[in-house]
Amino acid sequence: MRIALDAMGGDNAPRSTVLGALAAVKENPSITVVLVGDEQAIRSHLPQEIPSSIEIVPTTEVIQPDDEPVRAVRRKKNSSLVVAVEMAREKIVDAAISAGNTGALMTAGLLYAGRMEGIERPALAAYIPNVKGRVTLTLDVGANMDAKPHHLLQYAVMGSLYAEKVLGFENPKVGLLNVGTEEGKGNELTKAVFPLLAEADLNFVGNIEARDVMEGACDVLVCDGFVGNVLLKSVEGAASTIFSLLKQEFTSSLINKVGAAILKPGLSRFKKRMDYAEYGGAPLLGLRSPVIKAHGSSDEKAIKNAIASAALFVKQDVNDVIQEELQKNRTESE
Amino acid sequence: MRIALDAMGGDNAPRSTVLGALAAVKENPSITVVLVGDEQAIRSHLPQEIPSSIEIVPTTEVIQPDDEPVRAVRRKKNSSLVVAVEMAREKIVDAAISAGNTGALMTAGLLYAGRMEGIERPALAAYIPNVKGRVTLTLDVGANMDAKPHHLLQYAVMGSLYAEKVLGFENPKVGLLNVGTEEGKGNELTKAVFPLLAEADLNFVGNIEARDVMEGACDVLVCDGFVGNVLLKSVEGAASTIFSLLKQEFTSSLINKVGAAILKPGLSRFKKRMDYAEYGGAPLLGLRSPVIKAHGSSDEKAIKNAIASAALFVKQDVNDVIQEELQKNRTESE
Repeated sequence: MRIALDAMGGDNAPRSTVLGALAAVKENPSITVVLVGDEQAIRSHLPQEIPSSIEIVPTTEVIQPDDEPVRAVRRKKNSSLVVAVEMAREKIVDAAISAGNTGALMTAGLLYAGRMEGIERPALAAYIPNVKGRVTLTLDVGANMDAKPHHLLQYAVMGSLYAEKVLGFENPKVGLLNVGTEEGKGNELTKAVFPLLAEADLNFVGNIEARDVMEGACDVLVCDGFVGNVLLKSVEGAASTIFSLLKQEFTSSLINKVGAAILKPGLSRFKKRMDYAEYGGAPLLGLRSPVIKAHGSSDEKAIKNAIASAALFVKQDVNDVIQEELQKNRTESE
Repeated sequence: MRIALDAMGGDNAPRSTVLGALAAVKENPSITVVLVGDEQAIRSHLPQEIPSSIEIVPTTEVIQPDDEPVRAVRRKKNSSLVVAVEMAREKIVDAAISAGNTGALMTAGLLYAGRMEGIERPALAAYIPNVKGRVTLTLDVGANMDAKPHHLLQYAVMGSLYAEKVLGFENPKVGLLNVGTEEGKGNELTKAVFPLLAEADLNFVGNIEARDVMEGACDVLVCDGFVGNVLLKSVEGAASTIFSLLKQEFTSSLINKVGAAILKPGLSRFKKRMDYAEYGGAPLLGLRSPVIKAHGSSDEKAIKNAIASAALFVKQDVNDVIQEELQKNRTESE
């Protein structure tokens, strides 16, 4: 199996991507990782003897985190991100991964990989950590701003299958992000989606309020891309604000530093529980080729695990299973 | 000035409401608080000598936190919440406050207080604490699920005036909750709202991403009721989850308890920075009578401050100023 990795994408690239790729091929000898990017920069992190399961495809351009996505993808055709996705489309590789510009990856996915048959709107998934030590696969978090009810049904089907086949969640609980738990709550969209989810062949657990997401109320959370983006960024923002304020307090005096030092192992354990690097990257679902978005701040471990996720995405034929399931749901609803 | 307080509403009522009322009239002798609720329960928290600025209006019913709002308001006509709002409508009091069932207070506000002229959709505001030690007045957080662009413009005008007149924020910065900071980002609603806000007589600072809200990127944040509800509950949920996980770590061993004891003053200071009790309750804006929703977990101090907010709401003629400003914005846009 061959996986293309945008070696230049992410805050810690290309160090994190190259070392993550080396770790991944060591752990799983059936994988070949194609590092796409600046050859010299990539080689500087590789050993003298490059393993046979690591290949390099040199590119000359890099899409920056703050590049306007559509323009960047159209103009930087020789960028590491675009070339990685194109290689997936051309079936030179089985899947593509990037920790770079999210909007650009979605755009490249739509333009180059293309939509799966029957999917109007691919969805970007993300992981929200929860107290159960797992993650909630949340989709859509920003691919499609004005979603229709049947889009959300498709997100639910795709998310549920991905959670089962790649994350290993048995019979994943699917929830609908809403403002209250009772049926009939919400806006026009969620009111229309609820019965569709209830009738589908899913383990649908009903409406989920935003405050219960981190309590682990469901495994797969479905919402439109605008709301999902707000949810994801507010959780990230709240966590980051709280940690930085706590850090200020914990370092504000010598005695506080002593207290913080005592608590350090506990704080590390806590951080580990909130760490979703072990789940690797989250998928763009509904594209013809498997495409994985790794977190921008991915380290070596997160990249290694994103590669493992991509490998399972391919090995478990998730896209084929999604196609069958969508067909089934369509037939049932006719 | 006379303010009706639903003495039975909130997790700590009637103790919190009665003690909060006593503290408020002591601090501000020009206020009379009318405690609406179970007379015996109220009296049990009052001194033998009831101050002349405290009155009691006895009611026989209570709307519970989990009552279905519309049904509860229609059926429990002698409930403390409904009677408090009715007294405001009848101008027996100048304003009404409740820390009880939010949906019921919105329903009672719409049914009994009624909409201000020119306002199609009143909005429920809420406070989100930020690192600047202030709060971000966020609206709508759930009164109106499917908002139109001109509703959001009205929220902005009402929120900005309330922030200035009641919260004392000078020239409040108004932001539009969105998925990116650039103009042109977002869903159909936010794309249509952006130019309306840019043209209005407001200190509009543009799009605000959810992760920057707690950084204090703006003073007044405008969004539709569905998205606002998700934002508010995800911030609350993330904070509560993080604190409970930290608490687990801090009490997991004797040595950790020692560390936590050392850090206790710092943790208390931190909690205080995140505490928005000092801002009292948040308003329902766009109703004919001033109605304030205090947080369900309000203690005596939060109730006292909600009463102070209600008094400023009345004293500053916020509703009259809103009417003038709406008229101005309407004329300008014609």
